[in-house]
Amino acid sequence: MAADGNTPEYGPEFELACELIARRSLTPDDGGCCELLMSRLAPLGFSAEWINAGGITNLWATRGSGAPLMILAGHTDVVPTGPLDRWDSDPFTPTVRNGVLYGRGAADMKSGIAAMVCAVERFIAAGEHKGTLAFLITSDEEGAARHGTRHVVEVLKARGIVPQYAIVGEASSNETFGDRIVVGRRGSLGCNLRVHGKQGHVAYPHKGDNPVHRLMPALAELVATQWDNGNAHFPPTSFQISNLHSGTGANNVIPGEADVVFNFRYCTESTAEQLKARVHAVLDRHCPRYDADWWLSGEPFLTAQAELIDAAVASIESAVGIKPDFFTGGGTSDARFIAPWGAQTVEIGPINDSIHKLNEHVKISDLAKLSSVYEGILQRLLR
Amino acid sequence: MAADGNTPEYGPEFELACELIARRSLTPDDGGCCELLMSRLAPLGFSAEWINAGGITNLWATRGSGAPLMILAGHTDVVPTGPLDRWDSDPFTPTVRNGVLYGRGAADMKSGIAAMVCAVERFIAAGEHKGTLAFLITSDEEGAARHGTRHVVEVLKARGIVPQYAIVGEASSNETFGDRIVVGRRGSLGCNLRVHGKQGHVAYPHKGDNPVHRLMPALAELVATQWDNGNAHFPPTSFQISNLHSGTGANNVIPGEADVVFNFRYCTESTAEQLKARVHAVLDRHCPRYDADWWLSGEPFLTAQAELIDAAVASIESAVGIKPDFFTGGGTSDARFIAPWGAQTVEIGPINDSIHKLNEHVKISDLAKLSSVYEGILQRLLR
Repeated sequence: MAADGNTPEYGPEFELACELIARRSLTPDDGGCCELLMSRLAPLGFSAEWINAGGITNLWATRGSGAPLMILAGHTDVVPTGPLDRWDSDPFTPTVRNGVLYGRGAADMKSGIAAMVCAVERFIAAGEHKGTLAFLITSDEEGAARHGTRHVVEVLKARGIVPQYAIVGEASSNETFGDRIVVGRRGSLGCNLRVHGKQGHVAYPHKGDNPVHRLMPALAELVATQWDNGNAHFPPTSFQISNLHSGTGANNVIPGEADVVFNFRYCTESTAEQLKARVHAVLDRHCPRYDADWWLSGEPFLTAQAELIDAAVASIESAVGIKPDFFTGGGTSDARFIAPWGAQTVEIGPINDSIHKLNEHVKISDLAKLSSVYEGILQRLLR
Repeated sequence: MAADGNTPEYGPEFELACELIARRSLTPDDGGCCELLMSRLAPLGFSAEWINAGGITNLWATRGSGAPLMILAGHTDVVPTGPLDRWDSDPFTPTVRNGVLYGRGAADMKSGIAAMVCAVERFIAAGEHKGTLAFLITSDEEGAARHGTRHVVEVLKARGIVPQYAIVGEASSNETFGDRIVVGRRGSLGCNLRVHGKQGHVAYPHKGDNPVHRLMPALAELVATQWDNGNAHFPPTSFQISNLHSGTGANNVIPGEADVVFNFRYCTESTAEQLKARVHAVLDRHCPRYDADWWLSGEPFLTAQAELIDAAVASIESAVGIKPDFFTGGGTSDARFIAPWGAQTVEIGPINDSIHKLNEHVKISDLAKLSSVYEGILQRLLR
């Protein structure tokens, strides 16, 4: 809560966001946030199911029954603060300066969760709804993301539950609240590659087999490859080498192995299997012995323009008078697990320029607008 | 000395080699070896000059005056032992098993020094010599090699001293003593290269500038380059990447820099300046910002077949009945400093298969042969 006790009335979204920020929920710790949320949802008639796994607390709270099932999804965990002495105020003491709320999670994404809860409070106070309204809240989004939304989706999918809509409260706006919503994501495919050679002395190259020399033409070819041309919704697939290590430290020793980490952010024009096959074809030509350990962080998705996007656009136009752009760039979010489950999925949230940074913040006046957008979507789809 | 006290008479070279091995002279420590050598050379009429630098003891001992100046060169320092429990006997306790002398420095190169001293003792006992006979002994060869022979050569060169011949007692033989002498060396040119880029997130490659992606086509081109074709005396110049490091460890971050260490072993068909220029031409095409820190460990040299090589061949044929091959491969030695000074330079020593390894050793019967070869060369050139 803002420290001076003289803060004007900023509204219920602000109050709840402050309470959440004050709960020190460093990933994957929930810090008591889910209990706080449930204390607000239970009086509204939500019933809680705790779908925990691997030490992670996951809240699945539902109200109503049947279709359509609308999921409001979010995460309570936050990324580390970075150096505390470079914050202008304590990251876990919600602080107001010039109409802006500062704190870790202010934008990513405790404000989004607070705005969702307040929207639902108003929506339910105004009358009954059809179908099912659900919260899917985890504290394992910023870290490994193994036991969070991924797990909950698996459990619910196994029960035959199929959602129609999902709103993820991630910071989606660019320069002004509401100027952008996320309607898709590129896929993320990574690989730990180890190329084997034979250690030796640089003076006797014929006695060794330099894995770096095997690797260089292969990587040069991969770096130069045009993987696809993207499409109307996505930029072309991109390939990036993030880590490359080889060598003993001695300058006269041919190394025995070379290790590379690379990552694809890929669009719906390529599949993970195609990309893997193309990489292996290049490696097979240059490197006789290698191990490739692939991981698929998320497949790409694209939400077609149908009733959820229409409701989102109408609600944003009504709340802030602008028409949002549809965006498919940026990093991953839990939408990667929810969308393939079959739900029309969008991400709508505050301006994202301060997320994961020092002095993370949100404009207080955007909180009520965001909450109003969520409420407008519920009105349009569940009333 | 061999431990049992019942060793047969193996000759004076063996005795002196044992005394040297027992002196723990881990590079760059001399361990008292030079004092021991001088105690043998002073009675022969050698006068000692200690040309010390940077904490290194360098012995320059001469007898006679004027040309020809014949240098017998060597180093007393030895490389580290490696794991002691993997030696069959203590590396600093000279030990005989089956006619073989074991100990650190047994082959590289305390036997060579011992054989030289004993050869000179016999040579001088047999009569006067012409010109100058000199020992150049350092303990800074196996390490940085900055304050050893390199320094002594600089000091003597500044005095206008010019040697005609130099024999370096490094282990040169391959399978049988005397089957090979070293008549040249490739040059060694290294580079620490740092390519600069701009750190970023792999999801936004256009906001970063991946230095690994700049580097890969450049290194692929360098790896594929034929630098020259060698010549009758040397294999082609070789290029080896020994170290390659980039990346923060995180798999979603585009690194800001990429660091490479590479090394040329180059023959007399290329010069260091040519190689540098060719590398820079490639780098300039691919990498907008880089720093290249070059070091020249030694220029290549080749001793023409003239009176020193003729004397060496004749002495070896006389001592062991075989004709040596002329070799220019292998690692560096202090010959790289002496040869460019203008001396005909050869390396003649024991079999090199155990140098720098566990259980380093020399065949005891080779010691007298080696000493006889040295003596034969002195007879042929200085009598």
